Amino acid sequence: MAAVPRAPVSSPTSRAALWPARSNPRNAVAPPSGALWWPRRQTCPVVSMAPGSARSTPAALAVDPKVEALLDSVKWDIKGLAVAIAQNVDTGAILMQGFANKEALATTISTRKATFYSRSRSSLWTKGETSMNFINVHDIFLDCDRDSIIYLGTPDGPTCHTGAETCYYSSVYDALQGSKSNQERQVATTLYSLEDTISRRKEEVVAAGSGKPSWTKKLLLDNQLLCSKIREEAGELIQTLLENEDRSRTASEMADLLYHAMVLLSVKDVKMEEVLEVLRKRFSQSGVEEKASRKKS
Amino acid sequence: MAAVPRAPVSSPTSRAALWPARSNPRNAVAPPSGALWWPRRQTCPVVSMAPGSARSTPAALAVDPKVEALLDSVKWDIKGLAVAIAQNVDTGAILMQGFANKEALATTISTRKATFYSRSRSSLWTKGETSMNFINVHDIFLDCDRDSIIYLGTPDGPTCHTGAETCYYSSVYDALQGSKSNQERQVATTLYSLEDTISRRKEEVVAAGSGKPSWTKKLLLDNQLLCSKIREEAGELIQTLLENEDRSRTASEMADLLYHAMVLLSVKDVKMEEVLEVLRKRFSQSGVEEKASRKKS
Repeated sequence: MAAVPRAPVSSPTSRAALWPARSNPRNAVAPPSGALWWPRRQTCPVVSMAPGSARSTPAALAVDPKVEALLDSVKWDIKGLAVAIAQNVDTGAILMQGFANKEALATTISTRKATFYSRSRSSLWTKGETSMNFINVHDIFLDCDRDSIIYLGTPDGPTCHTGAETCYYSSVYDALQGSKSNQERQVATTLYSLEDTISRRKEEVVAAGSGKPSWTKKLLLDNQLLCSKIREEAGELIQTLLENEDRSRTASEMADLLYHAMVLLSVKDVKMEEVLEVLRKRFSQSGVEEKASRKKS
Repeated sequence: MAAVPRAPVSSPTSRAALWPARSNPRNAVAPPSGALWWPRRQTCPVVSMAPGSARSTPAALAVDPKVEALLDSVKWDIKGLAVAIAQNVDTGAILMQGFANKEALATTISTRKATFYSRSRSSLWTKGETSMNFINVHDIFLDCDRDSIIYLGTPDGPTCHTGAETCYYSSVYDALQGSKSNQERQVATTLYSLEDTISRRKEEVVAAGSGKPSWTKKLLLDNQLLCSKIREEAGELIQTLLENEDRSRTASEMADLLYHAMVLLSVKDVKMEEVLEVLRKRFSQSGVEEKASRKKS
């Protein structure tokens, strides 16, 4: 069962009560004037603490007892570390994996910027402190053993230092087949694989004459056909309810509707990630239902 | 940019050429007669090797030079390990995180069952070898540093030993708010959070009188209203294309269509995961486009 990521539980003010943020001039980050890539969702200063051993407690900062208890409940390894995985809250893409120590987790909790402990530099490292591509944390999860952490958030830009969206772009089976490692062939779950397939068909349509004929290309080239198919698929989905058809029909018709609607998104240059961002913002603010209600009633 | 997970690159026969699978009677798993929970996609025997140190090479098995080169390209840590993350290929849910050594990765490559190295037991461990809840691996990705691995696959059942779908069900912010750790509150990305919200509204509808009135509940109780809204939203999505409306309108109307269609899925007890499975199977077999073409032309 999945559950609802809550809206941030604390305002910057109440976060400060948990863990007083302080600005550190040495590490303070500021956008170049006029820069467009300033993080959209930065709501509080990036906290950076003095480097120390991975096991040290952030002595310079007063810690709320509840946060301290939570930090103590994590099963840090012998070096004081736990695995920390950053995941895109909208797409589910695993962006990167690093390690966190107590300070890194505490900093992430308070600043809501994904922060890690760099083993090579023996210091805290907030993803984005150099590139400005912060990962804005919406929620943090611990696993059943309390030795593995997920930072669930929205990235301000590409996460990988290579400029790729995620750090995972080398497929083992591609490599064994002799394919070159290709940064375009990133780890992708079903919905985004389909989106990419449609996107590649669109590129083939633009570069007229390349690739084989396909249904997607036909749809991409004919708005009237595409629209009539979306109407038709919506009708067939509805029919599975009204005529009490088998639930496997419902799954199949929903798949058809989703595919055809995603072709329309491609024509309009809209990413599924943007659609999910709309949904997330609606139901974390006043609820998607309430919004829909206001619009439709 | 996301890309398409390919259909398995090798048949059981060609996999055997890469890495000859052998059955090990001691570890062989067999379904109880008539058991319904026998893994759906098990296509080759589970390979299990004798326990050894994490650094040892699987000497008992002849290794294809390409596989050997790939295994050698991974930056194993001083203990011969790398982080291995299992992710659901359809939903993107992070199911669990463990560690892999060379043998574990080699075994996963050949058997396509997510396999780890258990640090506590100093032995290989194929997820599901006891519970039968295997994770059937569709693809494997290495990160830019080649020291972190994603096993992208479909789970045969709950992954966590607690019976939860994933091992990540403890929200740090919930805990700091004083909420009890709740296995229903699993890590979930936007689409599945929305699905869960709708599902909870449905439970409230069934337990008549509980909870507040909501638009979702109104839809859940009125099939005619729900169907007319789906038609309406499909029409509004189409309009953004035909009338060349702003792309932000397209994202917004697609969000509306998706939400209303997901309410219909809920009425029919269909999970979005099932819809994505349909899509994955279509475009990994003959291509979603070709399927759609066959159906529609």
